[in-house]
Amino acid sequence: MSVLPEQIEDLITSLKILPGVGQKTAERLAFYLLRIDDKKREDLAKNILSVKDGLKVCERCFAFTDRDICELCSDYKRDDDILCVVEDFLDLVSMEKGGFFRGRYHVLGGVLSPLDGVRPSDLRIVELIKRVQDEGISELVIALNPTMEGESTSVYISERLEESGVKITRLARGIPVGGDLEYADMNTLKKAFEGRVGV
Amino acid sequence: MSVLPEQIEDLITSLKILPGVGQKTAERLAFYLLRIDDKKREDLAKNILSVKDGLKVCERCFAFTDRDICELCSDYKRDDDILCVVEDFLDLVSMEKGGFFRGRYHVLGGVLSPLDGVRPSDLRIVELIKRVQDEGISELVIALNPTMEGESTSVYISERLEESGVKITRLARGIPVGGDLEYADMNTLKKAFEGRVGV
Repeated sequence: MSVLPEQIEDLITSLKILPGVGQKTAERLAFYLLRIDDKKREDLAKNILSVKDGLKVCERCFAFTDRDICELCSDYKRDDDILCVVEDFLDLVSMEKGGFFRGRYHVLGGVLSPLDGVRPSDLRIVELIKRVQDEGISELVIALNPTMEGESTSVYISERLEESGVKITRLARGIPVGGDLEYADMNTLKKAFEGRVGV
Repeated sequence: MSVLPEQIEDLITSLKILPGVGQKTAERLAFYLLRIDDKKREDLAKNILSVKDGLKVCERCFAFTDRDICELCSDYKRDDDILCVVEDFLDLVSMEKGGFFRGRYHVLGGVLSPLDGVRPSDLRIVELIKRVQDEGISELVIALNPTMEGESTSVYISERLEESGVKITRLARGIPVGGDLEYADMNTLKKAFEGRVGV
């Protein structure tokens, strides 16, 4: 595409590394970035560049933070006896948005996936077991995605903790709130039926 | 959301200025940018920052370029007597991808829109009229979007050129190739019927 000036071409190429951004979207974004005022464009570039500056991983729960121990782990008002395992930090952020959970978190850093070469030692499973034992956890909520990998990781964690006596739960499966039965996939519908509760 | 470290929060805020990027997408992009290697992230920031460096607008057709007269306008192998008017540079890029048009372009810089305060003097209409008169154009192809604004801009241009004797055409309306009659809107279907051709 010789018709595009090089600096625009370069920006399009860079933008295409982003997830879900193909050629068309990258073009649209590039021309949008050309049109906005310089300050906004410079801010975006600066924030991309400095996103990792001073960023750490919490020594206790492995969430992103700018301290050694993150804000959530340092918050003395949260319940110490209920621990929620999530796959990554973004899942923690989602849970926190709801504001319904007041315990602690543990960021696993992924899920087991033999095909992708992710083994237990690649995740923070040893650290999780140790926390459950050391911190007097009474309930471990496994909040992993309901995928094959998420399920087998849940099973693996449960087995490793079998003798610890800790109560292990997982998030309920069912029809999403506001969802439509007509469009639910059969597995979800089946899980929703099996998990039916009294009204 | 105090749970997000400030540098991630700042990046999310910056990303949300992009078209079609809401909170969720911005979060996903930000965490993706955290994960990729530093070189790629730095390249993206650099390319955003430098996209306007040395960028000019072609003095003849108003396309983006890094010269005074763009590559397309300088290409002596293209037809000089057929001129295609497009709304913006991205439309020119789309047309060029097809490779079916071998004439010259004129980038209007928008379409007339009284509600948004876009008047003829805000567009490169005077320059277009002058080019049609000076360059011995025999056909002017109006390739504006088939919206209300695009249509009224087409009418305005046609009227301004009425006495010039130049042949004025516009892109055909109809069912998109690979499209489905069942899903076509009634206006498109009507245009397609009205514009039916012999087989």
